[in-house]
Amino acid sequence: MLRSQYTVTRPVYSDDSFAIDHEKVFRLRKTPLDKVKEYLTCDSKRIKNVVLSLLPIIGWMRIYRIKEWLLGDVVSGVSTGLVAIMQGLAFSLLASLPPSYGLYTAFFPVLTYFFLGTSRHISVGSFPVLSLMVGAVVTRLVPEVGPSANITGFDNLTMYEKRVVVASSLTFLMGIFQLAMGLLQVGFIVVYLSDTLVSGFTTAAAVHILVSQLKFVLGLEVPGISGPLSIIYTLEENFVQITSTNICDLVMSIIIMIVVFIAKELNDKYKAKLPVPIPIEVIMTIISCGLSYGFNFEKRFGVSIVGKMVSGYESPIAPSIEVFQESAVEAFPIAIVGFAVAFSVAKVYSIKHDYTIDGNQELIAFGVSNIFGASFRSFAASTALSRSAVQESSGGRTQIAGLISALMAMVVTLALGFLLEPLPRSVLGALVIVNLKGMLMQFREIPYLWRRDKTECVVWLGTCIGAILLGLDLGLGVGLGIELLTVVFRTQFPRCSVLASIAGSDLYKDRKDYVELYEPQGVKIFRIPSPIFFANIDFFKDKLIEAVGFNPLRVLRKRNKALMKIKAMWQKRDVNITEKGMWDLFLQMTDESQMKPSETASELKGLPFKVCWNAELPACISVPRVDIHSVILDFSAVSFLDISALKGLKAMLKEFIHVDVNVYIASCDVYILETLHSCMFFDDEIHTSMFFPTIHDAMLHVLETRKDINTGCVSHQRKQPSDIEIQSTAVLDPDPAVEVETSPLSPC
Amino acid sequence: MLRSQYTVTRPVYSDDSFAIDHEKVFRLRKTPLDKVKEYLTCDSKRIKNVVLSLLPIIGWMRIYRIKEWLLGDVVSGVSTGLVAIMQGLAFSLLASLPPSYGLYTAFFPVLTYFFLGTSRHISVGSFPVLSLMVGAVVTRLVPEVGPSANITGFDNLTMYEKRVVVASSLTFLMGIFQLAMGLLQVGFIVVYLSDTLVSGFTTAAAVHILVSQLKFVLGLEVPGISGPLSIIYTLEENFVQITSTNICDLVMSIIIMIVVFIAKELNDKYKAKLPVPIPIEVIMTIISCGLSYGFNFEKRFGVSIVGKMVSGYESPIAPSIEVFQESAVEAFPIAIVGFAVAFSVAKVYSIKHDYTIDGNQELIAFGVSNIFGASFRSFAASTALSRSAVQESSGGRTQIAGLISALMAMVVTLALGFLLEPLPRSVLGALVIVNLKGMLMQFREIPYLWRRDKTECVVWLGTCIGAILLGLDLGLGVGLGIELLTVVFRTQFPRCSVLASIAGSDLYKDRKDYVELYEPQGVKIFRIPSPIFFANIDFFKDKLIEAVGFNPLRVLRKRNKALMKIKAMWQKRDVNITEKGMWDLFLQMTDESQMKPSETASELKGLPFKVCWNAELPACISVPRVDIHSVILDFSAVSFLDISALKGLKAMLKEFIHVDVNVYIASCDVYILETLHSCMFFDDEIHTSMFFPTIHDAMLHVLETRKDINTGCVSHQRKQPSDIEIQSTAVLDPDPAVEVETSPLSPC
Repeated sequence: MLRSQYTVTRPVYSDDSFAIDHEKVFRLRKTPLDKVKEYLTCDSKRIKNVVLSLLPIIGWMRIYRIKEWLLGDVVSGVSTGLVAIMQGLAFSLLASLPPSYGLYTAFFPVLTYFFLGTSRHISVGSFPVLSLMVGAVVTRLVPEVGPSANITGFDNLTMYEKRVVVASSLTFLMGIFQLAMGLLQVGFIVVYLSDTLVSGFTTAAAVHILVSQLKFVLGLEVPGISGPLSIIYTLEENFVQITSTNICDLVMSIIIMIVVFIAKELNDKYKAKLPVPIPIEVIMTIISCGLSYGFNFEKRFGVSIVGKMVSGYESPIAPSIEVFQESAVEAFPIAIVGFAVAFSVAKVYSIKHDYTIDGNQELIAFGVSNIFGASFRSFAASTALSRSAVQESSGGRTQIAGLISALMAMVVTLALGFLLEPLPRSVLGALVIVNLKGMLMQFREIPYLWRRDKTECVVWLGTCIGAILLGLDLGLGVGLGIELLTVVFRTQFPRCSVLASIAGSDLYKDRKDYVELYEPQGVKIFRIPSPIFFANIDFFKDKLIEAVGFNPLRVLRKRNKALMKIKAMWQKRDVNITEKGMWDLFLQMTDESQMKPSETASELKGLPFKVCWNAELPACISVPRVDIHSVILDFSAVSFLDISALKGLKAMLKEFIHVDVNVYIASCDVYILETLHSCMFFDDEIHTSMFFPTIHDAMLHVLETRKDINTGCVSHQRKQPSDIEIQSTAVLDPDPAVEVETSPLSPC
Repeated sequence: MLRSQYTVTRPVYSDDSFAIDHEKVFRLRKTPLDKVKEYLTCDSKRIKNVVLSLLPIIGWMRIYRIKEWLLGDVVSGVSTGLVAIMQGLAFSLLASLPPSYGLYTAFFPVLTYFFLGTSRHISVGSFPVLSLMVGAVVTRLVPEVGPSANITGFDNLTMYEKRVVVASSLTFLMGIFQLAMGLLQVGFIVVYLSDTLVSGFTTAAAVHILVSQLKFVLGLEVPGISGPLSIIYTLEENFVQITSTNICDLVMSIIIMIVVFIAKELNDKYKAKLPVPIPIEVIMTIISCGLSYGFNFEKRFGVSIVGKMVSGYESPIAPSIEVFQESAVEAFPIAIVGFAVAFSVAKVYSIKHDYTIDGNQELIAFGVSNIFGASFRSFAASTALSRSAVQESSGGRTQIAGLISALMAMVVTLALGFLLEPLPRSVLGALVIVNLKGMLMQFREIPYLWRRDKTECVVWLGTCIGAILLGLDLGLGVGLGIELLTVVFRTQFPRCSVLASIAGSDLYKDRKDYVELYEPQGVKIFRIPSPIFFANIDFFKDKLIEAVGFNPLRVLRKRNKALMKIKAMWQKRDVNITEKGMWDLFLQMTDESQMKPSETASELKGLPFKVCWNAELPACISVPRVDIHSVILDFSAVSFLDISALKGLKAMLKEFIHVDVNVYIASCDVYILETLHSCMFFDDEIHTSMFFPTIHDAMLHVLETRKDINTGCVSHQRKQPSDIEIQSTAVLDPDPAVEVETSPLSPC
């Protein structure tokens, strides 16, 4: 096969000459102020859009096709309603609340979400992880043993009444946080909850849920414990009491878990052949309810049952400000987790059914729903993936299905609640546990992640272990911290490399990666493979020094010291002048004070002669050799540069320039160049002329400028190319050959 | 001037063909395990090095030149000693401790640092910011009013004795943290304290110090307040009591401040002409001491004086574990700040005097010094820039100067302390305040930073305001958090751009930046200007969709829907077959089930014919137009890629491939390619052949492959280039011209 050829002929460009040849557009960058102004602009069309986006129901109601969609919505609503009732009862146990409040949570938040939500398929209501997080606060402020927190109005309330006040106040605050975030348009923050983090977090939550349900399955009286390490104390309590296990509860739980597990596996396996999945949970609930009632489990075996349900709705309550103060730190992660879960589920369905959802509007919708729900004593609402899956798969098209499921919950609350009263709590616990399978299976991600990306594995483990040991709220914070640190770390410690040319091409590759590479003598190409900022500028400096093989600042100091010695020898006439050159030099030394050495670099310029540092110097003068004359920095991967990096870079460049090494920068981003200009990066030593569009341009420029220069000893008089240089060679005693270059037309 | 030409002729390379042409070195990357192993390797040379690095004194003692250096060290030690005594007294007021403990701090830590420290020029001892941070803990645990914290062994102690226990236990814990960090070799963490952060933090510290010294200057009895917003409460207390101001204190303070201020300005101005700077602070202290003693300020004006000094040293004490528990959260930032300050000062002098310091050894040295000092009741030691400047500028060459200054402090403690007893505390306060000038001047950085880099300005202000309002420890945490977030933000929201070719060259620039650019039809070059990770993969996806003008997933769905319609029309024979092609097609439709549409992309392949989506379709079928056939992603700035990004990128590439858009990736980093390989990025749709070394290679490849293809309607049979394609055109009723392409040799 004939390979196509790559042929390019064009001038060698520096960034400067490129700008001359190609007209550049002057772009006015938007300042943050402009963006704010733009954002606040207001006209009638915008107002209409805002109203539409605040009430998404208008959008989907207008296209609602009653004939085609209504039936599906009703069927879906009824199925979802059954699941929602079951989950409401079970998850209220996670929240350490009486089961009937779970029914409230399946009702109130749905009503407002119906109007405000942009997702048409999620089922709003309780979510196990969220319920558990609420439960942690509830048991902290109102423990079973010991005094409750000191909160006004708690005096005459029973424990459960207090707990409801705490849960609803917490939910109210969570709603405020969500609403505020929605109004501030900061819905994007969920991007920080990466898949890895969420996986680790939900796995930890599953472990917490499992442990919290043990007491129901075993029929024990274990008080709810919260705070760091609570999981260990809870396990300990369970084991201490294990001899008091209620055998009836345990047997019933095990049977239910096995049956439900098998039925679910069958559902999964024959997914394609079954018209609808077997509603095994509903069946088991009805059976155990019937058995418990028929054989009076409560009296006969001492089984703990759901008990008296609140029938009907209670009057709304105002949230307690004191609970706000006590739980603000926990309410924020709850708000974030609640939103993040709902948003991720909503996103899946919006992609599947091809409509758009709006993160900020979702925040507003959940915020309002939680505030509204909390006023009617329901607890934190989000969505559960399992319930939403039922709603979507059974034919739900819009939130009308959600509304119908809410009405089912209402019917149970108002009229049928008594039917559920004999249901043993252990059944609910067993159902919760058996549903954890998917979440616990996420442990399998550990070896997967370890093989692929160690850093991600650390994030997963850190989040999971942190959330298990410290509790879900703190654990989420720990996970986020680790995750953000990994980003900083990855940016901070990149792999630097020295590049070399692929002979005969314009390609430059890592010197260590290829066998046949060509590296022109005296030129180092150093690739900076990441953004430069305060935390890695010193790292790069060290790596560059390692790559070039000398520390320019050190070399400069040594040279200045050597210069002092040369001067001293000169003054003592300790130098045998063997050639005419040194005489010339001597004659020029009109002002001795000009030769006074100092620690600064400019001193080299003040001298009437130049010393060729790479030549042989007298034995008493030792200066590190500098084998290179040019350094090319490959900036193609430098995506930003901060002020610290800018200062450090400038200092570094100057150090090299002061030891007569030219520095060139290739493939620098346009925006970074603008920043450099605005931050006074350029001065009389650092010019824009050191910037080149590609490494090859820079390399050609280097080879071009070095071509006709004596490679033994070079002076860099770039600014005065027309100066006539007279080279003279002098020999200093006791050693031969110090080459000294003079430039008689220069001021000294 | 004749411009040099850039001429390159080489084959067009893809990354694959490049690898074939150029032999690659197989590199075994070190795993973290290898690095640990390497780190733990042990041989006699290493042991010698470890011992030498653990006892740096051996290093500099061996090169000590007694004749040349000793005099300088002694002179420097005496001057530094005077300053150290003054500062010790003054800074112990910041730590809310009796002044004599400041003298301990100027003595004990120096002794161990002498052996262990790698810096030869810093003066170890008290540091105002650190003293203030210790003071915050001291006043929290042992307030002037109200009960002390409940700590064993506190019962029979006076308030000051308790405070000394708290301060020394805190210092002990801080020493443990520093030592642990040193042994774990994590000294690098100070890089996170960027210049901006440190500037904001020390400015806030100066404000705190100023406020804390007000009470001494005004001669008021204000209790020490700690915790968030303490600065406001302290100011309030001062203003409430302002009528009780002690006029003698105030007048004396103002005079001292003015005199010292002027003398310091003069010192600065005539730096070159003065042999030594005027020791104005020592002079003023002696004068005010004399005046206070002579006129009995304490009795006559009620001035608060230093009072009874502890004469001699007390027996060592064990730290209190309970204080550890109470102050662990504060001890950590104190350890960090103490080390960071000392290290940054040490670095300045090490560069100036050309020796190396070792961050981890410094941590060990300060850790041991603080543990040792704390056992003898001294408080947190670091270094003060002002004192180190005295030590260095007055001729100190090694820590022998430090040792002599410590001996001076010992002499005062043991014998001369009584001379300082009449010194008014307001004098010490005034001296502290007048020395804040430099730190407070840092406020001038705000406008400087604002003009140059808004983000850095936010970090500065966030750190400063946070540290002022929340206290120094929390403020440091806030500042660090903001700073790390800025790194994430900068990486997360970069400026994406669409590139176009500079005609006649191999350069590609932002389309918006240049006037004359050439963009081949149907190709988009999209530059990803930053690393890709979980937080920005969706951002890039949105930007890419914006750049190409269509959402590939949406297009695919629409196409699949359209396909269903075409199939339905076909089955109803609602299609007028006007040309032979459609008959062929009909004859091939042997298996109708193959045409059952689904939501997946593979469905397109299962069909016996291909529809040309960009041609005119029947009116009832509407599919978004796709105007491009190739997307080139410029990866040159992608310095890392995490698993989330990898998954997202893979999904994104597949979406494009499924709508028949070729995706090419240019300038991908070698290491990223390795990651892609190890993470199963490649499959039957995504090949390594889509990687090219430069954009121009990719572009040439695109132009080459597209050259001979019918641009109206294209099928991508890249894998079967030898297949004979028969193009046939059919017209579907009611609209004309649906181009359908068949490939009779393909399996269906």
